[in-house]
Amino acid sequence: MNLILLHDSDFISSSTAVLKDRRFHHIRTVQQPVAGDQLKVGRINGKLGTGLVLEITDNQIRLEVRCNTTPPPPLPLTLILALPRPKMLKRILQTCATMGVKQLYLINSYRVDKSYWSSPVLTRQIEEHLMLGLEQAGDTLMPEVHLRKRFKPFVEDELPGLADGSSALLAHPYEASPCPAPQMRPTTLVVGPEGGFIPYEVDKLNMCGFTTIHIGERILRVETAIPALLSRLFPL
Amino acid sequence: MNLILLHDSDFISSSTAVLKDRRFHHIRTVQQPVAGDQLKVGRINGKLGTGLVLEITDNQIRLEVRCNTTPPPPLPLTLILALPRPKMLKRILQTCATMGVKQLYLINSYRVDKSYWSSPVLTRQIEEHLMLGLEQAGDTLMPEVHLRKRFKPFVEDELPGLADGSSALLAHPYEASPCPAPQMRPTTLVVGPEGGFIPYEVDKLNMCGFTTIHIGERILRVETAIPALLSRLFPL
Repeated sequence: MNLILLHDSDFISSSTAVLKDRRFHHIRTVQQPVAGDQLKVGRINGKLGTGLVLEITDNQIRLEVRCNTTPPPPLPLTLILALPRPKMLKRILQTCATMGVKQLYLINSYRVDKSYWSSPVLTRQIEEHLMLGLEQAGDTLMPEVHLRKRFKPFVEDELPGLADGSSALLAHPYEASPCPAPQMRPTTLVVGPEGGFIPYEVDKLNMCGFTTIHIGERILRVETAIPALLSRLFPL
Repeated sequence: MNLILLHDSDFISSSTAVLKDRRFHHIRTVQQPVAGDQLKVGRINGKLGTGLVLEITDNQIRLEVRCNTTPPPPLPLTLILALPRPKMLKRILQTCATMGVKQLYLINSYRVDKSYWSSPVLTRQIEEHLMLGLEQAGDTLMPEVHLRKRFKPFVEDELPGLADGSSALLAHPYEASPCPAPQMRPTTLVVGPEGGFIPYEVDKLNMCGFTTIHIGERILRVETAIPALLSRLFPL
């Protein structure tokens, strides 16, 4: 936790916040501050700043909060990802939030197991894992996650509008061009499931204007491919 | 499993291999081949090729093996990593093997918990996780993993020799230069623990000739930083 993220509901006055939950226990056990110490805080979807410790007890911490610093810039990216299995989804949500992805579409594909769509990670824990990712990065801007359970209508009806005016890339290791050089331009990136998109799906995406790219001959797991792709597509 | 990795001990003659373990069960359940099918195989520390299915029963598979293809080239990298916590170590071993790391040093640091050194992952499961990583990548060349439980003697006595003639880089997000552009040159990369190296350790590494580099203002978890760093340091 490199940043303590604050909800509006944590505030008892315009500049005083009280924490009692996971964040409090982390602060108390790991950071162990005393009254008068300053902690790095941020307001969700707001600015970064400091929390002056007014009081810390066995049950809660009270902070005087001042936030004036702009969070790190988001990636100009819409990431479209075949829904991963739940355990991997947790880490991928964290990674996406940490690396600055702000628009994430989780879509269906032939090789996505149907059971993944009813996983508790997807139905109840998305925000929790995004928060962990933002806390890691020192960012406040909550990513938006969109679920699309039908591949064909999504690709035919919605994707052309999403990708309009952006560099439209499909990461797929076969019959692909090398990943383009880092550039901070609007990008729509599609990443398939473990085992890859089936040829029908690749065709549909190509027909929608997506260029197939690879990042080398080694086949990466999805959770490894995402940081590798983002690190290569966007400059520091 | 994008590749079936074969040990010498799997062979009952110069070109016939029999599998009964995890690999057999995976082949049987996932790939479901019949006699006459060809599977992608590789010999550990040897070449890639095909395994012609001679027979598949409820207990084993018998393959006629021909291997003539060179595996993907390794990264010209020595990766030196503060020992991660066991759960993360599993994934990191897989990621390193998948991405082509062949020399991995796991070292101690102030922020490495002592208990990590007695984890079963470290004492008994290293090869298992490296195999999973190679199977994912379609590579045969087993990485070498070296354990160094004392930071100071390692950095003072061994590291200068390891880094000699290579680009010596320390990934550390503070007081750092941007990561250099991708280039296929010999590199020694040091990555710290969660929470980072302490100033004394950074000083020791800088004194040993290591340049501090970063990959942006966002602080990444170690398991995310590794693919991001490797993808940025080396061309496709």
